[in-house]
Amino acid sequence: MNTSTLPRATHLPNELPGLDWVTDAARVARLSQDFAWFSPVLKRQLADKTADIAVRPRSEAEIAAVVGACARHAIPITVRGSGTGNYGQAIPLHGGLILDLSAYSGFGWVRGGAGRAQAGIRLADFDRQARPLGCELRWLPSTFRSATLGGLFGGGFGGAGSITYGPVAAPGNVLGLRVMTVEPEPQIVELRAPEAMLLHHTYGTNGIVLELEVALAPVLEWVESIAVFEAFDAALEFSSALASGPGLVKKEVCFLGAPVPAHLGPLAEYLPEGCHAVLIVMAEASQPGMENLLADFGGRITYRKTTAESGSRTLLEYTWNHTTLVAMKTDRNLTYIQSGFEPARHVEQVKALEALLAGEVMMHLEFLRTKEGRVNCSGLQLIRFSSEARLDEIMQIHRDHGVAINNPHAFILEDGKQGQLDPAAVAIRRRFDPQGLLNPGKMRSWKPLTPPGTSPRASC
Amino acid sequence: MNTSTLPRATHLPNELPGLDWVTDAARVARLSQDFAWFSPVLKRQLADKTADIAVRPRSEAEIAAVVGACARHAIPITVRGSGTGNYGQAIPLHGGLILDLSAYSGFGWVRGGAGRAQAGIRLADFDRQARPLGCELRWLPSTFRSATLGGLFGGGFGGAGSITYGPVAAPGNVLGLRVMTVEPEPQIVELRAPEAMLLHHTYGTNGIVLELEVALAPVLEWVESIAVFEAFDAALEFSSALASGPGLVKKEVCFLGAPVPAHLGPLAEYLPEGCHAVLIVMAEASQPGMENLLADFGGRITYRKTTAESGSRTLLEYTWNHTTLVAMKTDRNLTYIQSGFEPARHVEQVKALEALLAGEVMMHLEFLRTKEGRVNCSGLQLIRFSSEARLDEIMQIHRDHGVAINNPHAFILEDGKQGQLDPAAVAIRRRFDPQGLLNPGKMRSWKPLTPPGTSPRASC
Repeated sequence: MNTSTLPRATHLPNELPGLDWVTDAARVARLSQDFAWFSPVLKRQLADKTADIAVRPRSEAEIAAVVGACARHAIPITVRGSGTGNYGQAIPLHGGLILDLSAYSGFGWVRGGAGRAQAGIRLADFDRQARPLGCELRWLPSTFRSATLGGLFGGGFGGAGSITYGPVAAPGNVLGLRVMTVEPEPQIVELRAPEAMLLHHTYGTNGIVLELEVALAPVLEWVESIAVFEAFDAALEFSSALASGPGLVKKEVCFLGAPVPAHLGPLAEYLPEGCHAVLIVMAEASQPGMENLLADFGGRITYRKTTAESGSRTLLEYTWNHTTLVAMKTDRNLTYIQSGFEPARHVEQVKALEALLAGEVMMHLEFLRTKEGRVNCSGLQLIRFSSEARLDEIMQIHRDHGVAINNPHAFILEDGKQGQLDPAAVAIRRRFDPQGLLNPGKMRSWKPLTPPGTSPRASC
Repeated sequence: MNTSTLPRATHLPNELPGLDWVTDAARVARLSQDFAWFSPVLKRQLADKTADIAVRPRSEAEIAAVVGACARHAIPITVRGSGTGNYGQAIPLHGGLILDLSAYSGFGWVRGGAGRAQAGIRLADFDRQARPLGCELRWLPSTFRSATLGGLFGGGFGGAGSITYGPVAAPGNVLGLRVMTVEPEPQIVELRAPEAMLLHHTYGTNGIVLELEVALAPVLEWVESIAVFEAFDAALEFSSALASGPGLVKKEVCFLGAPVPAHLGPLAEYLPEGCHAVLIVMAEASQPGMENLLADFGGRITYRKTTAESGSRTLLEYTWNHTTLVAMKTDRNLTYIQSGFEPARHVEQVKALEALLAGEVMMHLEFLRTKEGRVNCSGLQLIRFSSEARLDEIMQIHRDHGVAINNPHAFILEDGKQGQLDPAAVAIRRRFDPQGLLNPGKMRSWKPLTPPGTSPRASC
């Protein structure tokens, strides 16, 4: 076997034998995938993308060693947490190395309402260690059991908790981070907000985030409930009023218009046929206020458990993109879109789109506060998939109604953000990844100074 | 001395000798006043109002005994906490008895994020006892040291904390209360929200609130700061952005346009001449986010202390109506108005009114969330008083700009609320005060079934 024809990345274990390498093709292929299969479009486009090799470093020194080697050999690097992203965040477009940070998962500290940990820590682990210290994460995506802190920062929006604290991107949520440059001798830099935010939601393409320091929420006693309604409008208006009330302390308000509840098999006993449902996680002291509001809107509670009573089951795993995941388990022909309504007009917009598209588009809304603090909802509508052309048409209909689409059927960074990426986020890549080795092809706005695949040293 | 010509209330000590009576005319007169002197109009109108006698019961049994006696003799009752209200809440319009509840001040319990106490507990005392249990009050008026929980519920709006939790009136804030009826044999009733809210902000005229159960906030480490600006608009826009940001956890954002800071003598060393100032109380972890925002708007910090460092001084005592109080100490010719801006248009409205009235009306804004959860500001503008006619004119100019006026120069309940009182709040008085003995004259919508001053028993 002439090893010189193999991708250069496969030689890395010889150079750095002490690391935890993954070379088995099937395992490397698995580590080269994420939840992009939610989209039939991405599934087709990204099916054959795979890294040459993966590595699972356990320390900063190990990360520096492998990153330095990649920089010297001009090997592309794709940073990965647990691979729970939906847009190919963890899928290498041009082979190379998967830098799996899930073993770089140390819990740092909690003090003064803030906390710090290594990027690979699972969100559930962070909370487990922070709670006895009186704090918990401000946002939990539905993937919190496996998703990492670095992955949430690199590719996530927020999740449960965003109804109070807004998205991860809201000023004050992320305080700082430690980033490693992709250079033959990697440097380590501490960035504080707002500069640190230039690395947020860039899918690990403009720097390798090693540690994150985030503001935390005080630990509260949470109660999980399911409220069901006969009328779509009543359920929607209840959700919006509940989300808005400043005296009602909540972590999650998830609206599921019929027939979405019918797709949540494991919760079937709490979801009467044909119902519209609202999944709620609220502070214990806010229960009576919620129940008063529920009476006003003619809903009723079918499920109610405190965190302690619910044990390992949590309704959070039926919200956000877990709604999509659970529904797709029963019907593989479903897909979804992501949409951002207009604060104050959101209820009216939802009603108009429901009137137009019911049957084909099934309403799933997550209530949240925007970065600017206004109550709004974000749609993760389920779609009965017919064709890519129709999917585009449906997204256009939303735009025509003043609803923004964050296209989850695109894998190029800019395409998921209405074509725009903050120029400063591109510029900072010159500092942290001068060769453009972080998943090349993912960031369209990046213009390499040296042609990709050419090591700057190879010309010496 | 022919005692038969004395008001009937003065005979009460003979009937109930074991109670803590106040009969000294000067002391009774003092207990018959509140902070209505903030208004030159109310000062004139209410100057001669006084009760005949006051009592300071220490138990529910003592309250029942005196209330029962008043009902039997048709003696008017004015309920009083610490008398920190501004609209004559504690001033008896037709003599009778002052029921001073400040000695009925037991702390009940804190559990599940809620707490309960007797109405006469001082807000500062409540917090002192709740904090070791992990909770604190959601709102602190600037009078928190002396103001009582019952007084805040009976006549207050909210205060510091309303920027997060909205006003006291926001659903979910008050959970329930214990009320005593004014009858020969007083009954005691537990009311839960939303019905309990019918007794909110009715100045103790539709029932005697004995205990309150309220939702609480988790205890956080707070930092107090003063930010100063050269430009009015920058200070205003900074305040609004700070108030709105969901990732910035705060308790107080108070905007003081020049020359209001010049009236706050005790803080002079932190308030450069001619500055516009923002008094801020925020969570420790939110400081860096606030400072980033401050840099964006060109402000700077002149004072910064944690709660622990600040000892007994707190900036809260320079906000809300303490701004008015402190300013009036240096200039007795000042008065104020209370105004409610429109969410989303508030910044624009403030700028327009500043352009029109600067010099005569000095901008003091308290940022808050409305009952519906929108960020807004409420004005407690200082006014250089010239005449009552001009004061009315100024209020009308505000209304003409779409700014609501909650007239603090009116002592009739309805007049402070744009003429309206919830009919249900009047109706419930039939149940809790069938004779209409609670400060007769204060609630205009009340139509007595028996002529005031006539005991229903007297006709038997």
